[in-house]
Amino acid sequence: MKFLEDRILKDGQVRPGEILKVDSFLNHQLDVELLQEIGRAFYEYYKDKGITKIITVEASGIAIACMAGLFFKVPVVFAKKAKSKNLDGDLYVSTAHSYTYGRNFNITLAKKFLSEKDTVLLIDDFMARGEAMKALISICHTSGAKIAGVGIAIEKGFQGGGDALRQQGYDLLSLAVIDKMDENSLVFRPGT
Amino acid sequence: MKFLEDRILKDGQVRPGEILKVDSFLNHQLDVELLQEIGRAFYEYYKDKGITKIITVEASGIAIACMAGLFFKVPVVFAKKAKSKNLDGDLYVSTAHSYTYGRNFNITLAKKFLSEKDTVLLIDDFMARGEAMKALISICHTSGAKIAGVGIAIEKGFQGGGDALRQQGYDLLSLAVIDKMDENSLVFRPGT
Repeated sequence: MKFLEDRILKDGQVRPGEILKVDSFLNHQLDVELLQEIGRAFYEYYKDKGITKIITVEASGIAIACMAGLFFKVPVVFAKKAKSKNLDGDLYVSTAHSYTYGRNFNITLAKKFLSEKDTVLLIDDFMARGEAMKALISICHTSGAKIAGVGIAIEKGFQGGGDALRQQGYDLLSLAVIDKMDENSLVFRPGT
Repeated sequence: MKFLEDRILKDGQVRPGEILKVDSFLNHQLDVELLQEIGRAFYEYYKDKGITKIITVEASGIAIACMAGLFFKVPVVFAKKAKSKNLDGDLYVSTAHSYTYGRNFNITLAKKFLSEKDTVLLIDDFMARGEAMKALISICHTSGAKIAGVGIAIEKGFQGGGDALRQQGYDLLSLAVIDKMDENSLVFRPGT
């Protein structure tokens, strides 16, 4: 989507280690009107899929998932990365590796909020190697929910997570796919 | 606000240890239309205060902060609870104690997103003893930003955090204040 590519070119910063900083509008400071456009784009693409719930992972997925939820008029459920005293009862648990934080972590989701009756759209702000998304997908499989699609704001195409999911047959829409980046240039995949 | 009190009575669950579970609509599964009404209520109360930014803490504050941001048409910044490789540069840091998780944690916010030019509304989904909010306030003081108000969805009035901030002169609006709760009854503070 041109609106997101333009914003990445304007305000994104490439740092060593294949890090794209978009913290001025997507994952620390949030441009809520841009996030609303992201939510609208997911709705336009997936609106006829019978979505009953939107699922994401805390923390930065929550904002765009909620914006999409306003269009779909369905609940959002965010998987949690740490178990607190308040998260009791039966939980789905899956393990993911965070390359950002350099460690494994569990994501958990209360069983009462996801079942075989659901048709879900999985949303996240970023996809690199796809570790968090694979953990979410694993939870959906365990629950029996049908995965209607995977909506990503920014995909680092060169890290392969998105294409691996496409090859497995998931209907994955990334609003901006970066095929190459260094400190001098960003190359977007055509046709997204 | 009656709409939130009614929802707490309908779907909230009181658990031992003074825990109020509202995970079916506020902090695990999210009823986005309810969150939109929460955002609207904050806007109606604080709309003439010259707010330039909304500040919250990850994770569950993000959703209602974004909904409020749509009405105010200002950016949202969420403070982070862990330092990642992607959060470099100059940071404001403040320490809070989490009674939910039973440990201290740092919250951090990039200095470039908050300065003495800002007039901020601080938002969170819950206030109990007010630990996270005190840490956010400390960051605002360090930055020189003016705090125009503190908007809370659910305040556990009997734990004192909200009243302590009111006594310090903060313009704190909680949409539902619980003055007493046990497994048989919930008593809301009148007039909120």
